[in-house]
Amino acid sequence: MSDCLKDAPIGVFDSGFGGLTVVREIMRQIPNEKIVYFGDTARVPYGSKSKETVTRFSRQITHFLQTQNVKTIVVACNTASAYALDELEKEIDIPMIGVVKPGAKVAADVTQNGKVGVIATSATIGSEIYTTYIKKLKPEVSVTGKACPLFVPLVEEGLLEDPVTDEIASRYLLELIDIDIDTLILGCTHYPLIRNTIQRVVGEKVTLVNPAYETARELKLLLEEKGILQDKKPDLGENRYQFFVSDGAEKFKTFANSILKYGILSAKTISIEDY
Amino acid sequence: MSDCLKDAPIGVFDSGFGGLTVVREIMRQIPNEKIVYFGDTARVPYGSKSKETVTRFSRQITHFLQTQNVKTIVVACNTASAYALDELEKEIDIPMIGVVKPGAKVAADVTQNGKVGVIATSATIGSEIYTTYIKKLKPEVSVTGKACPLFVPLVEEGLLEDPVTDEIASRYLLELIDIDIDTLILGCTHYPLIRNTIQRVVGEKVTLVNPAYETARELKLLLEEKGILQDKKPDLGENRYQFFVSDGAEKFKTFANSILKYGILSAKTISIEDY
Repeated sequence: MSDCLKDAPIGVFDSGFGGLTVVREIMRQIPNEKIVYFGDTARVPYGSKSKETVTRFSRQITHFLQTQNVKTIVVACNTASAYALDELEKEIDIPMIGVVKPGAKVAADVTQNGKVGVIATSATIGSEIYTTYIKKLKPEVSVTGKACPLFVPLVEEGLLEDPVTDEIASRYLLELIDIDIDTLILGCTHYPLIRNTIQRVVGEKVTLVNPAYETARELKLLLEEKGILQDKKPDLGENRYQFFVSDGAEKFKTFANSILKYGILSAKTISIEDY
Repeated sequence: MSDCLKDAPIGVFDSGFGGLTVVREIMRQIPNEKIVYFGDTARVPYGSKSKETVTRFSRQITHFLQTQNVKTIVVACNTASAYALDELEKEIDIPMIGVVKPGAKVAADVTQNGKVGVIATSATIGSEIYTTYIKKLKPEVSVTGKACPLFVPLVEEGLLEDPVTDEIASRYLLELIDIDIDTLILGCTHYPLIRNTIQRVVGEKVTLVNPAYETARELKLLLEEKGILQDKKPDLGENRYQFFVSDGAEKFKTFANSILKYGILSAKTISIEDY
């Protein structure tokens, strides 16, 4: 049973492409694992939508991933982690892990001056979830959130190193620099892709926290703890990664291949509303 | 029967907020009409999604509007007009009108040098629908399309008059200026909101075509032709405008009130997937 579970894939989902930065970290840190990824490209983005809608969408995806016999589910989307995770983990009997808690934990650990900034979608900032988790761990830390709605479109337009992205980043980050934060959480899975720009704008003294990295670390600990970490190396040529989307499989494949080191052979479109 | 039809509302839909620029024109040009508007705010945007998905979403909305006993349906979204209109108008027995044909017709009429530019979402540009319609009317006109994916997020972030929007517009429009267009179609319902920026960048000699205006004109003609134009003035205090969305009714109301002259009393959230 346990060996069978060890061999089961990890389910990962996001509203679209962004969660691939989490997949990238999982591939790096626990390379023996199989992964089933779902990106909700028909209904992306989530960051501007309501708690009810994001929870309904996330529930359908959770049901789909369960049909793929995953041993755990990683909510690789900050908005879904903020809005839906608490409710969904009560509904299913496999462990779920989001990106918010691991990111919050590290930020609480690394801050020296007790001033943490969070940048994310309007939904994630509005939920104040990073503040809640950090305060639980260290009530004396002050947390300031800033929604950055243009970052995702700028990344998706490919303006990773561009004066326009610099200008927008300068505006968004100004108030966080002004209050002298020493730690900044990249609270949206797209943001690590403009990490260099963000670091340049806030300066080298500010530590950037990438929840994708921390989430993969926590995932590994979780699997070890449950005794279901895959310790067997994969067979040569075995296809361990499966990608599903709700729209635009070809476009997804192109974007995924620009982020991941492994070539993705294909992505499959499914009708997520049926789950 | 005809009087009853005259009194029936006009159904208007869009992927989100943008179609309100069409509603604004309908309110101006045929102020006696009732309107039922649906904005698919749970699944917005459409412009980056596939024909199959946009058609499936548009079909659900058409079914919903039919339950509201509308006398005609205006597809106030360029992407849905490009991808779904031809198929849907075969499926229902009330007239449908999109924003693309009216815009194409005017552009074909007004161009002097036979060089027309179109700016729109990736989906609308990819469909080449403006080119197809213009060429049908005037085969000698050359049509050049340019997708402008950042315009919608810039508008939704409120950067209507901003150096960043100027810079992005200059980049997008450069190739259209280079080929000496004299007419430019604003092929996405958000774009009239940054009309001033676009006009400044392309110069005063280029005529901007706003399909929202032309669509309201064509709609009036269509209703007259069918004998179902409402000639009776509304009763004082009668609420003629109803707004439905699939998510975020409060946010929609705020945005709508910034675009429309009439205060919107409320917007109602419905579950569009059920239609």
